[in-house]
Amino acid sequence: MEKMKIAIYGYGNLGRGVEYAVRQNPDTELFGIFTRRAPETVKPALEGSKVFSASDITRYKDQIDVLVICGGSATDLPKMTPALAADFNVIDSFDTHADIPKHFAAVDEAAKKGGKVAVISVGWDPGMFSLNRLYANAILPDGKDYTFWGKGVSQGHSDAIRRIEGVLDARQYTIPVQAALDSVRKGENPDLTTREKHTRLCYVVAEEGADLARIENEIKTMPKYFSDYDTTVNFISQEELDRDHKGIPHGGFVIRTGRTGENNGSNHVIEYSLKLDSNPEFTASVLVAYARAAYRMFLRSEAGCKTVFDIAPVDLSVKTREQVIAEML
Amino acid sequence: MEKMKIAIYGYGNLGRGVEYAVRQNPDTELFGIFTRRAPETVKPALEGSKVFSASDITRYKDQIDVLVICGGSATDLPKMTPALAADFNVIDSFDTHADIPKHFAAVDEAAKKGGKVAVISVGWDPGMFSLNRLYANAILPDGKDYTFWGKGVSQGHSDAIRRIEGVLDARQYTIPVQAALDSVRKGENPDLTTREKHTRLCYVVAEEGADLARIENEIKTMPKYFSDYDTTVNFISQEELDRDHKGIPHGGFVIRTGRTGENNGSNHVIEYSLKLDSNPEFTASVLVAYARAAYRMFLRSEAGCKTVFDIAPVDLSVKTREQVIAEML
Repeated sequence: MEKMKIAIYGYGNLGRGVEYAVRQNPDTELFGIFTRRAPETVKPALEGSKVFSASDITRYKDQIDVLVICGGSATDLPKMTPALAADFNVIDSFDTHADIPKHFAAVDEAAKKGGKVAVISVGWDPGMFSLNRLYANAILPDGKDYTFWGKGVSQGHSDAIRRIEGVLDARQYTIPVQAALDSVRKGENPDLTTREKHTRLCYVVAEEGADLARIENEIKTMPKYFSDYDTTVNFISQEELDRDHKGIPHGGFVIRTGRTGENNGSNHVIEYSLKLDSNPEFTASVLVAYARAAYRMFLRSEAGCKTVFDIAPVDLSVKTREQVIAEML
Repeated sequence: MEKMKIAIYGYGNLGRGVEYAVRQNPDTELFGIFTRRAPETVKPALEGSKVFSASDITRYKDQIDVLVICGGSATDLPKMTPALAADFNVIDSFDTHADIPKHFAAVDEAAKKGGKVAVISVGWDPGMFSLNRLYANAILPDGKDYTFWGKGVSQGHSDAIRRIEGVLDARQYTIPVQAALDSVRKGENPDLTTREKHTRLCYVVAEEGADLARIENEIKTMPKYFSDYDTTVNFISQEELDRDHKGIPHGGFVIRTGRTGENNGSNHVIEYSLKLDSNPEFTASVLVAYARAAYRMFLRSEAGCKTVFDIAPVDLSVKTREQVIAEML
């Protein structure tokens, strides 16, 4: 069997995750890493991974089966994915929920022009969480949805703390409130405020002599990021932060409760949860599974922008249809 | 919007569940119930539901969009589904895992002959659990699968107890072992024996004067059903059984743990769980969602036997593709 050739476009934590994930899948191989930095300055995680300049990518358009675009949603992906989708089958993890329809339209136009398949917003939220929302809603039309995130590191909140004067480094964990989770699982259908769903836990390294009370107050009162939450601030040393908080764990829960039957008397709880040691490595693993599906759809001459909702589960599996029916159904 | 006309073939707990589920979905309406009994002896759960004789069904083949076949997997479905799949779009909940490939082949031939869509083995296991096994395996190739069932009523085990001399009635609950679940969730990758995964809890109504010790021993030593499990037997009165154990709850857990990254150093846990007050009503709700998908596929001129693996999630939703992308992704 000829292996599917996957290339990585953008090389940070997510790109490294894709590099590892490609190694785990027997039907994929890494064509190479494309970087906007000088290629010779980039050291791949795995021996043998080739590094190319991003500006040369169209030269390789006939040699790459799927391009996994590992850029940020704020500024990179809205430009990169539409620009690359006419020449390559592409996957991205665009996660600005409100802007997905706009991104979809731009990518769809490019992909259809080039006869390629693009899959956007792949990962776990959006991605696996979205899928579970859709399945659970289709099964239980009369019900209520809940999504909880964490325990996990929020990069955006960590960055927001780092911008405060006197802060050298910070790590912020989002934590679901256990009592809220318990109530949802019991089918109590609670209406939960922002504060009732999640708490925020911050580890902060401050400059020597900094006013810790001021920093703590600035964090806790920061609009949007912290003011609507119960927030705990712990000041620790850089050594402690590096030693105890270097991982990028995350996860969460998608729960739908709903009622059926006579007088809606039967209650049901559908729950999907993830507990991830590495957010970027898990996201990368989802991206590679959808790269497989994208390539299969391309081989069947389907073109245009797709989401996880459009892709039949069988296309994600390394196994044949006969195998999954016999072994997994 | 014209509503999709759904008919129920076979009217027991599952059929009643479909009748209720159709009422919950705004784009479906019940054409009627087909029964092998005398139609006038069947009282539908909902006012206005029409009852027809199963032997007349082909008369209505142009008026029914999807037929939900609510028969047993042991003897009914292997005959019914292939027999009906040439004339109707059909859904069944065939759940004898080992015989699925054979059932698939028979149904596929009939459905292709008639240009119809058949979806087999729909429900939660097989069904939603199968989907979650496939998704989790595609994402984490290097990992381990676990399925736990319960707490829930096993009809087969309850029936087996009822066949023992001196037993008037019985209800058997399958219960997952909490310590095993905890170990799996921690990523310890335990190898679990049958006994370590589930216990069995039995409520038994015995004839007056029956030898309770003998009955208990016959249950606990029954091969396949109980001998490999830690089994608890409680003798209760018929009144207690009817009062406390009339529901048909079920549920369970599909968990995959897997590793990624440098030296496989990151552990991930994907968990899907169901807690169902009514096993047949929930299964029926899944059947109706897949009836929607079957009919959409039929309208697109796709024909043949399908499974949950073949169906793009978007086809299950009452909402349009644009809506689910905007609202659920």
